[in-house]
Amino acid sequence: MSVLVVGSVALDSVETPFGKADDVLGGSATFFSASASHLTKVNVVGVVGNDYPMDKLEPLKKRGVDFAGLEQADGPSFRWRGRYSHDLNSAETLETHLGVFSNFSAKIPEALRSSEYVFLGNIDPRLQLDVLTMMKKPKLVTCDTMNFWIQSRRPELIKLLEKVDIVTLNDGEARQLTEKSNLVQAAQWIMGLGPRHVIIKKGEHGAFLFTRDTIFFAPAFPLENVFDPTGAGDSFAGGFVGYIARTGDMSEANLRRAVVYGSVMGSFAVEKFSIERLMTVTKAEITQRMQDMRRLVTFEEELPA
Amino acid sequence: MSVLVVGSVALDSVETPFGKADDVLGGSATFFSASASHLTKVNVVGVVGNDYPMDKLEPLKKRGVDFAGLEQADGPSFRWRGRYSHDLNSAETLETHLGVFSNFSAKIPEALRSSEYVFLGNIDPRLQLDVLTMMKKPKLVTCDTMNFWIQSRRPELIKLLEKVDIVTLNDGEARQLTEKSNLVQAAQWIMGLGPRHVIIKKGEHGAFLFTRDTIFFAPAFPLENVFDPTGAGDSFAGGFVGYIARTGDMSEANLRRAVVYGSVMGSFAVEKFSIERLMTVTKAEITQRMQDMRRLVTFEEELPA
Repeated sequence: MSVLVVGSVALDSVETPFGKADDVLGGSATFFSASASHLTKVNVVGVVGNDYPMDKLEPLKKRGVDFAGLEQADGPSFRWRGRYSHDLNSAETLETHLGVFSNFSAKIPEALRSSEYVFLGNIDPRLQLDVLTMMKKPKLVTCDTMNFWIQSRRPELIKLLEKVDIVTLNDGEARQLTEKSNLVQAAQWIMGLGPRHVIIKKGEHGAFLFTRDTIFFAPAFPLENVFDPTGAGDSFAGGFVGYIARTGDMSEANLRRAVVYGSVMGSFAVEKFSIERLMTVTKAEITQRMQDMRRLVTFEEELPA
Repeated sequence: MSVLVVGSVALDSVETPFGKADDVLGGSATFFSASASHLTKVNVVGVVGNDYPMDKLEPLKKRGVDFAGLEQADGPSFRWRGRYSHDLNSAETLETHLGVFSNFSAKIPEALRSSEYVFLGNIDPRLQLDVLTMMKKPKLVTCDTMNFWIQSRRPELIKLLEKVDIVTLNDGEARQLTEKSNLVQAAQWIMGLGPRHVIIKKGEHGAFLFTRDTIFFAPAFPLENVFDPTGAGDSFAGGFVGYIARTGDMSEANLRRAVVYGSVMGSFAVEKFSIERLMTVTKAEITQRMQDMRRLVTFEEELPA
């Protein structure tokens, strides 16, 4: 099984209280791929400029990420520069240069149009809709979005949500989209539009998976040292969609495991800059952290006799 | 088994987006008792003014809460007035009148000095220390505190922490006390002072139980309607300490269950004003929510064959 991801492939410059990194690999498709590559094959569709250091994508290719759908266009690559203060909770965006990404129109290569698992990274909902019209009959479409699109492309975003199976967004975005402060109500409102499931990500506070009748919660893994939160959400999505693609199982039990894989992959992503940690983490470390996640939440509710 | 709680017995006036309540039962000892009374007997030590509506305590007495240690002094009762805005995340304090509480010196009746389970509610650390000197040999002392004391009574608070078994505080307070933004590091710092366990409460984002070697996390139960968050933390403490007192078991497995009881009792507390919901909740409802809490976090980490 493989996953098709459509999203940004960018260059990030990040400052945290622990150091800084310039022009390192970033973008939603990059983090997603690095994460999902531990679970499944990945095909990336996106665009970079002619200044992009293509050789830096080699380690991802070696991990089974296919960049045949990554167009290289004339002009500068998408660049983001951001800074995290002491508590690492939210990034302050210092600069965003869309570069060639501002004219991006997703062309899905013929061979990828029959992809069964699709992740629509956080891009203009009009592009996300375009991608869907090109796809044949995907088994599972998951999309992400952000505050900017909720504000500026609300009608298109609503139309998109009517066509996807699962949406991931953070708590602030869920409240903004639904105008409901209560997350249970917000999730129900979103499922009312069409998605079978909603994942509300709360950063360091974990993530909810809502189905029509049930709620599952996975905490963020409590790390003693968080280094750089950039890409945690996309790494979460990579673990989540990657695990579903690997198993081909959309039962609730499996979706729950997929959420925990998402949380685990997100927790590795934040241990170093860019995708560094995702490139070195081993199968054994992932398995260990899955076990640690279970220990973190396990209790028996019965009163002792 | 019974629990001794020393704390405030107050009158609260609260405004939320859903309504307002005036001069209703409030205070740390009140919420703690209402919650713990579902699990164990409770003895309250505190002070109220001669204006306190003592008859309103009758329902608590009927539930096994003993107010023999509640002094009634000349003067007005402790009153708090607060308001929650749309997101219910934090209270804006509009007025605080300490009244007779400003001259409170805890006198522990002789019969209560041999109490085995003690909860020191959020009061001046000098008073919390005074209480401890009066106690014989408690099995388990748990204390709570707040930002005000961390700032104004830091040396006394540190001295107190050297003498307690478990401390509960919220994430902001843990960061303020330890000057560490990372909660794992903050908890280790606090345990370095003496407490065997630290509980860091994150409100709607759940609670961590830290032991020397392990971390347990219990989410807040995701409610569709949160009515009034006042007293959630003390209700949590009541469920936690109450369950330990009921079982007399301080194994880690039992402490984990106790944290979940805390989370469950806190989730009931916020469903209505004051202690209203805690007065009507049934054993069956508590048991049901314990089961719901387990379903909320349960997953199997194994890859399918």
